[in-house]
Amino acid sequence: MDTHLHHDHVETHLKSSEALTDIVIGMSDGLTVPFALAAGLSGAVSSSSIIVIAGIAEIAAGSIAMGLGGYLAGKTEQDHYKSEQKREYDEVENLRHREIEETKEFFASIGLSAELQEKATAEIAQDKDRWVDFMMKYELGLEKPDPKRATKSAFNIGLAYIAGGIIPLSPYFFISDSASALKVSVMATLVCLFIFGFFKSKMTGVNPWAGATRVMLIGAMAAAAAFGVARLFEH
Amino acid sequence: MDTHLHHDHVETHLKSSEALTDIVIGMSDGLTVPFALAAGLSGAVSSSSIIVIAGIAEIAAGSIAMGLGGYLAGKTEQDHYKSEQKREYDEVENLRHREIEETKEFFASIGLSAELQEKATAEIAQDKDRWVDFMMKYELGLEKPDPKRATKSAFNIGLAYIAGGIIPLSPYFFISDSASALKVSVMATLVCLFIFGFFKSKMTGVNPWAGATRVMLIGAMAAAAAFGVARLFEH
Repeated sequence: MDTHLHHDHVETHLKSSEALTDIVIGMSDGLTVPFALAAGLSGAVSSSSIIVIAGIAEIAAGSIAMGLGGYLAGKTEQDHYKSEQKREYDEVENLRHREIEETKEFFASIGLSAELQEKATAEIAQDKDRWVDFMMKYELGLEKPDPKRATKSAFNIGLAYIAGGIIPLSPYFFISDSASALKVSVMATLVCLFIFGFFKSKMTGVNPWAGATRVMLIGAMAAAAAFGVARLFEH
Repeated sequence: MDTHLHHDHVETHLKSSEALTDIVIGMSDGLTVPFALAAGLSGAVSSSSIIVIAGIAEIAAGSIAMGLGGYLAGKTEQDHYKSEQKREYDEVENLRHREIEETKEFFASIGLSAELQEKATAEIAQDKDRWVDFMMKYELGLEKPDPKRATKSAFNIGLAYIAGGIIPLSPYFFISDSASALKVSVMATLVCLFIFGFFKSKMTGVNPWAGATRVMLIGAMAAAAAFGVARLFEH
């Protein structure tokens, strides 16, 4: 007996949704936020060196906050799963009539007749472990989390953030006038955001050209807003 | 017929998982990243004014990137749902035998007998719309997304990021020496991260004291790393 249904596009979906989702999360913010921060500071200071320091501080802060945030989210998911599982075992033990009702309601909700609701519930309720697994997955919508996922997630997200953040910042390393560095940074980052958005959209089944344009526009808007706000506060 | 099962803790879970999840996402990063950036810059520059400009640029960039990121995620979810739904309708129409097999496999996976697998599948396959809904939800694990969710999400996340980011930055508005401002910022932000972590953990069913400590430590580590890295690059 296999708990996964075999289906080409589901298989692809499942495979891509592990590490790639993390990388997309990390790189999406890594390309956008350090880019917008550098652009914003370029509106307020003329020397690239302070922008390099701020950008590097941001990349360090962002990658750790997002990476450890991913770790924490993974751990929280595990704790949450365990505490809900304990509760379901308690309920199967002590509130059996209510769990029976809930299992029947599930079968009613997917459209089974009253007769089959009864029969299917009776079969499932025979095995306590299987019944709890069923309730966890289909009543509460909780998947059993992979215990190594939290650590992997932290690294993937953090490294993707750093990789993304270095792109908009690198022109400021080589060009000391911030206004000139900004021009190179804008061009390089918008191209990268477009390419990134294209592949991200392909992965999630969205029209890649529309998706790429959206991702690029978000980056451009964030950078423009940061530039405007920083210039406003500088005066 | 109700597609939701009635259960006290599920109801609570469902209610809290809409706006509150957005606010937690936004505030978590809003408290951490501008905090760490300001701390990092305090290790490299002695005047608060440049830190205020960098901090404000970061808050503008971060809130827009995260807010629009939330909007994009919502839109992507909708597009993905629609494209998968179209595919399921096609398959129910043209690959009926395979869909029948997959539906049976679902019932096998939850532990029903061969007899009930047959009967339940036959009942579900009678109504095309209901069958597709069933496959969307239980084969692909996709919930029908709320069409207004993307816009709401964008505002909630963006505003929570701004609200979170103002806390670590505010001491730099009033204290011109960055080292002194940093001390106030660290104390105020760590207290806020602890309180925030406490309520976030309560919401997700994690031990609130342990959760609060973890959230606070992540913020402290991000700030310390940004401080160290900025000081390193300044020399």
